Amino acid sequence: MKQRPFLLLSNDDGYAAKGIAALIDTLRPLCDLLVVAPDGARSGMSMAMTTSVPVTLRLVRKERGLKVYACSGTPTDCVKLAVAQLVKGRRPDLVVSGINHGDNSSVNSHYSGTMGAAYEGVMHGIPAVAFSLCDFDPDADFSPLRPYLIDIVFKAIAAGLPPMTCLNVNFPNVAPYKGVRVCRMARTHWENEFARTRRPNTGSYVYWLTGDRVDDEPQADDTDAWALAHGYVAVTPETLDVTAHGLVEVLKGSF
Amino acid sequence: MKQRPFLLLSNDDGYAAKGIAALIDTLRPLCDLLVVAPDGARSGMSMAMTTSVPVTLRLVRKERGLKVYACSGTPTDCVKLAVAQLVKGRRPDLVVSGINHGDNSSVNSHYSGTMGAAYEGVMHGIPAVAFSLCDFDPDADFSPLRPYLIDIVFKAIAAGLPPMTCLNVNFPNVAPYKGVRVCRMARTHWENEFARTRRPNTGSYVYWLTGDRVDDEPQADDTDAWALAHGYVAVTPETLDVTAHGLVEVLKGSF
Repeated sequence: MKQRPFLLLSNDDGYAAKGIAALIDTLRPLCDLLVVAPDGARSGMSMAMTTSVPVTLRLVRKERGLKVYACSGTPTDCVKLAVAQLVKGRRPDLVVSGINHGDNSSVNSHYSGTMGAAYEGVMHGIPAVAFSLCDFDPDADFSPLRPYLIDIVFKAIAAGLPPMTCLNVNFPNVAPYKGVRVCRMARTHWENEFARTRRPNTGSYVYWLTGDRVDDEPQADDTDAWALAHGYVAVTPETLDVTAHGLVEVLKGSF
Repeated sequence: MKQRPFLLLSNDDGYAAKGIAALIDTLRPLCDLLVVAPDGARSGMSMAMTTSVPVTLRLVRKERGLKVYACSGTPTDCVKLAVAQLVKGRRPDLVVSGINHGDNSSVNSHYSGTMGAAYEGVMHGIPAVAFSLCDFDPDADFSPLRPYLIDIVFKAIAAGLPPMTCLNVNFPNVAPYKGVRVCRMARTHWENEFARTRRPNTGSYVYWLTGDRVDDEPQADDTDAWALAHGYVAVTPETLDVTAHGLVEVLKGSF
C-alpha cells in the first residue's frame, strides 16, 4: 500500500473517553486519523441528528497524521460534518466508531450512538466498522482488543464491504478471547425498563431508564449473543437496507 | 370483533401536532386509544432513548376510550414508558406512529423519530405502523389520508405482522392518490448537508443541518421513492433484524 490508510474516527462516549483513546493509540502508528467525536457522552442516541439548533466543531488536538475535533452534536452529526466540511481533499478509506464502553450486540445496535456513527459512514458510501467492549466501566481495559482492532480494520480496508453494509464488532468482557465468530444478530428484548422514583420537591413521579436484556433464542449458536457469552469476539455484518424483502410480495396481495 | 381494538399512538412532532390530532380524530370512533407522545418536537431522533436524566409523563386529556400523555423524552421513550407503566391490564393490538409532518421514506427512515416509536413497538412484540405525509407544513391537510389510515390499521390488526417487522407508510404531498404500492426502500443519499454561518458575538462558525436527498436508482419502479414521485401511497415493510445475512458466510472465510 503506497499511502497510509486514512480513517475517520468517532464514538458516542465523547472525544475524551478511554475507548476512543485506545483506538487512536492503536491505529495511529499505521494510519492517518481524523477524529470527530462528541464533546461529551451521547450514549443511546441511535442515528439521531441535530435539526433544531446549529452544531459546532472545536479542534482540540493537531499532530502529524492526527487531528481531533470535539463536536456539540450527536455521533451521526460528527460523521456528517466530517464528510461535508473536513475531508474535502481526501476521502476516508474507513469510518471506525468506538471503542464503545458497553455492549452494542443484538437489539442494542438499534439504540447505539456508536452504530449511528458507523451507519452514517455507510450513508456516505464509506465502509464502516464499530467496536464495542462489553464493559461499561469508564476505566475498562482495552489492551486485549489491540491485535483484533488492527486485523479487522485492515481486512475491512483491503476487502471493502458491499454498499449499505457495515460491521458491528463486540468484545466479551473477559480476555483472552477464544477467537472471532462471524454472527447474526440475536433476537433479544428488554424487560423491567424503568425505575420509578419521586421528585423530591413536588413528589411527582420520574422514570429512569434501566432494564434487563433477555435472549429469546439462547440455544442458537450462530448469534452474537452466543459468541459473547462463550468468550468469542462477535463480528456481525449489518445492512442499512431495512426492507423486509420477504414481506413485499406477501403484502402485495393485501393492498 | 367483540372488543374495539386498542391502539398505542405516538409521534415525533409532539402531542399537540396537527398530524397526531388527525390520527386521533380518524381512529377514535373505531378504537380505544392511548396516546403517549413527546411534549414538543423530536424530529430526527431516530431510536434515541434518554439515559442520563429521568423522563416524565403528564396526563393532558382523558375521555371515554382516550387518554393522552405528554412525555419529556424521545418517541422511543414514549413507547417504552407506555408499555412498561401505562398498559398493564391490556396489551395494545397495534402501535401507530405519526402522522409525521414530512417524508420518512428511503434512508430518511433511519433518522426518523416517527419510525423510532414504531420500532419500539416491534421491540415489545407489538405490530406497528408509521404514517408520514410528504409535507413539512405544520398546517398540512391530512384529510385525504383518512380512508387509507383506517384501511391499513385494520388490515395490520387483522393479518398481524411477522416478528421484528413493521410498516413504513408514506403519502405523497399531492392528493388524490393513485392507489397503494407495496415497495422496497430506495437507495438514496443526502448531499449539501450543512449551511455554515457565523455566530454573531464571536464570529466562530456554526453548522446548520440542511441538504438535498438524491435518488441513486431513479429508474427503479419498485421503490418507495418511485411510488411517491408518481402519486402512490408507499407501503414499505421494514425489519429490525439488520443482519446482512448474505454477508455472514462470505465473511466467515476472512475471520
